Amino acid sequence: MKVLITGADGYIGRALARRLAAPGATLQGQAIDQLTLCDLRLPEAPPAPQVRAVAGSIADAAVIDAITQNHHDVVFHLASVPSGQSESDHELGLKVNVHATLALVEAVQRGGAAPTFVFTSSIAVFGAPLPARIDDDTPLRPSLSYGAQKQMAEIFLADCTRRGFLHARSLRLPGIVARPPTPTGALSAFSSELIRALVEQRSFVCPVSASATLWLLSLEACIDNLLHAAQCPPERLGGHTAWTLPAQRLSIGELVRAFEAERPGASALVSYRPDEALEAQFGRLPPLTTARADAAGFRHDGSVAQLVRRAARALDPAPA
Amino acid sequence: MKVLITGADGYIGRALARRLAAPGATLQGQAIDQLTLCDLRLPEAPPAPQVRAVAGSIADAAVIDAITQNHHDVVFHLASVPSGQSESDHELGLKVNVHATLALVEAVQRGGAAPTFVFTSSIAVFGAPLPARIDDDTPLRPSLSYGAQKQMAEIFLADCTRRGFLHARSLRLPGIVARPPTPTGALSAFSSELIRALVEQRSFVCPVSASATLWLLSLEACIDNLLHAAQCPPERLGGHTAWTLPAQRLSIGELVRAFEAERPGASALVSYRPDEALEAQFGRLPPLTTARADAAGFRHDGSVAQLVRRAARALDPAPA
Repeated sequence: MKVLITGADGYIGRALARRLAAPGATLQGQAIDQLTLCDLRLPEAPPAPQVRAVAGSIADAAVIDAITQNHHDVVFHLASVPSGQSESDHELGLKVNVHATLALVEAVQRGGAAPTFVFTSSIAVFGAPLPARIDDDTPLRPSLSYGAQKQMAEIFLADCTRRGFLHARSLRLPGIVARPPTPTGALSAFSSELIRALVEQRSFVCPVSASATLWLLSLEACIDNLLHAAQCPPERLGGHTAWTLPAQRLSIGELVRAFEAERPGASALVSYRPDEALEAQFGRLPPLTTARADAAGFRHDGSVAQLVRRAARALDPAPA
Repeated sequence: MKVLITGADGYIGRALARRLAAPGATLQGQAIDQLTLCDLRLPEAPPAPQVRAVAGSIADAAVIDAITQNHHDVVFHLASVPSGQSESDHELGLKVNVHATLALVEAVQRGGAAPTFVFTSSIAVFGAPLPARIDDDTPLRPSLSYGAQKQMAEIFLADCTRRGFLHARSLRLPGIVARPPTPTGALSAFSSELIRALVEQRSFVCPVSASATLWLLSLEACIDNLLHAAQCPPERLGGHTAWTLPAQRLSIGELVRAFEAERPGASALVSYRPDEALEAQFGRLPPLTTARADAAGFRHDGSVAQLVRRAARALDPAPA
């Protein structure tokens, strides 16, 4: 079993790589005898002998060549320019989120059996403002370049799957918590910033109101779902190639109260200075049903208490 | 007023170029002082002094450079690898329908005011089988690479419009009749083949049944709609960037009867040998409503008799 992870030094990529490099880790019931990690920068020492690290941008053809020299059975394509940066640098977003994705897909389907291709899409494909509820029939109307680029990739992957070039599993990720601080930042990072502040018992000025609603999933549950996507028997997928992942819909107020229950005093740390535009784009998420993903076996954290515990754990040095 | 047409030697491109190169032709109320035509091959002698011809593939960066040396106020991007060829040669379809479109868009938005960008998309974005009726809310689920590639381009153009790089007008074309024979052929070419046979009083074995239904628009009405797209005041567009063009929904039987009314004996020329797969993909078009396009002023031919007359006229050496 040969596995490739792009974006392997990102927040999600690191946790995924840690799971797959662990002793005895399997995928699709097979031992992982080669795990290739690719990202702009990677730790000097690979965590295990079967791990091969390739540092460089997937927007660079030579890097794609290097990581696809051998055939991969499963590809996790996580590398992406996030929402804020895709807005501020349209060319870079396009280069990585669209062109590099197309080039990677073309390269991994050469030689060997069609690989399973797990792609991290985003709820940004729905755009804003959102309709009163979201389900599997909600039309995609991205309102940021990031969402548009993710949707283009989803369509391409669906077509490549139909043609038998690969088996695509595009997962639309909700807010994954708690992310560490990033310089390039997703615009929606405030939920993780809030959680970090509460875990570290710092005061936090929240840029959306207490009634702002989010769709949240812990890092741990996110990794569980990525691994499930790579292993789920085809007959459970119902012929689909893209799923909106299950997530808990919570208001900022509910999230803070769940922290208060575990860490008394937490709610006193939070004050509110809502940014109307930010809240309109990222903080008015309607009720969500994900029947397709539920049927395929994707799962959220199950309870707010579990989400809060896992989100706090994701801030540990070796989470998930 | 400087205008660019890609795919200018295609069936639609030639008719559009003829209209825009005609003496006194205007666009957006202005005289056309430069008309750049681009296609793989172009006639030796440009039809008018203001016409500049660039022969070559838009998948070639040097060709994109050549055609975008000066700024264009209006771009008609018609160049495309058709449905059949996009299925048989995935790489070529992707190169022209996606990569070249992205490269062209990037090039035309450099320098000068944001151009109006008229893009010929296709009803192939809906895929097959189709739901019981199609309207502006019907989800796009392309079932051929051609449709997937057109949808990717639509999404990209919508995002570029939101960002102010250009003003996109993507028109999803129904069956345009009557096309001349082509070697590379659209899979849906049978409706044009039927019309050509009836005009030329030849017998025709129809590869779909008499009850097969199509959405049809004459070449003349198609050109009218492309020109309208380039000139329609923004306030009529309702913030949209893509429209399914109005078309008449006709069965093959109705089409043949309309010919019979004008050319007695026509129906005796037609026999049927339906190809189930072809009919499923292209011959089961449900009722169509195009409220958005109607409101923006796009129009079909108005009557079956008018469609049949215009379709026959499109086969003349200098149609539309």
